[in-house]
Amino acid sequence: MRTRRAAEDDWPAIWPVWHAVVAEGETCLWDPDTGEARARGLWMLPAPAEVLVMEVDDGPASTRVVATALLVPSQPDLGNHVALAQLLVDPALVNLGGGAFGPGGYHGPSGAQGIGRAAGEGMIDHAADLGYHAMQLNAVVAANTRLVALWRSLSFRVVGTLPAAFRHPWQGDVDLYVMHRFLPPPTRAV
Amino acid sequence: MRTRRAAEDDWPAIWPVWHAVVAEGETCLWDPDTGEARARGLWMLPAPAEVLVMEVDDGPASTRVVATALLVPSQPDLGNHVALAQLLVDPALVNLGGGAFGPGGYHGPSGAQGIGRAAGEGMIDHAADLGYHAMQLNAVVAANTRLVALWRSLSFRVVGTLPAAFRHPWQGDVDLYVMHRFLPPPTRAV
Repeated sequence: MRTRRAAEDDWPAIWPVWHAVVAEGETCLWDPDTGEARARGLWMLPAPAEVLVMEVDDGPASTRVVATALLVPSQPDLGNHVALAQLLVDPALVNLGGGAFGPGGYHGPSGAQGIGRAAGEGMIDHAADLGYHAMQLNAVVAANTRLVALWRSLSFRVVGTLPAAFRHPWQGDVDLYVMHRFLPPPTRAV
Repeated sequence: MRTRRAAEDDWPAIWPVWHAVVAEGETCLWDPDTGEARARGLWMLPAPAEVLVMEVDDGPASTRVVATALLVPSQPDLGNHVALAQLLVDPALVNLGGGAFGPGGYHGPSGAQGIGRAAGEGMIDHAADLGYHAMQLNAVVAANTRLVALWRSLSFRVVGTLPAAFRHPWQGDVDLYVMHRFLPPPTRAV
């Protein structure tokens, strides 16, 4: 998997991933019915925001976008050394848990967990190379234990719990976690 | 003290308060040198944001803006029942602590603590009347113990700690608290 900065003309490949994750309604706070024009405005933000795509080879001469990330400074000016991050991974490739798969969850095909993890690693490395000192996730659905476990395995810890902050489509009002990790120094120019 | 929705033409009265608080550099994350044009763009946001002013009588036929608040939905769509709030109180009227006043702090003239508290109450009541279910403060400087105490006295609790998230002008990197409280049902139309 390769992680790179997205250009405007990547949007047609980003939108199916964005839509699939948001329509699921379990890991994002946007309206599951959000249409493409609004989605593009929410996601393809100008600098200092940074939009990333994670892609894999999909044939001898083609690639496929399997995940996308959005990095913005968590706070302005005196707090802009912390990246606020969001990561959306194609749900057809990785199940991050949730009620639709029933108790115990669905483990997915071989390698599926690896795609979410690799996308997370790509996002972390890119943010470090941008010079950010730390990364913060502001809205990790506490009920989504598989997603929380993925972030923990990438060295994030829960630094905050926002009570009843997510009106979950079928679980009622559930908590959101704020998760955080420090980042290593940059290793290359991006 | 009266709290009301601000109009565009309130900006000239808001700016001196905004500037005084931000220039102090102890409670806000904006660059202390932020100029008026950028400040206006950062603060006077369109709906669903709501800008408030708190004013007191300043003579038989005049009023003075002593504080201003900004309320925005903390999250989009499925999380927009929580208000993300910021409150700026004229530092000439209320000292919320900080190193410039030396160890132990400066207690200010009689009634000063009351102005910060009354402004906070006005903001809370207005947010409740807008229909928000809860209020969240995302960046309360942990080193500012007087400000933290004020929010605690208004029923906020610390629900998160963001490590080293504020590059404090002379204390180095200090923590930010995320503080939260639930709100009562609306009591009037605003």
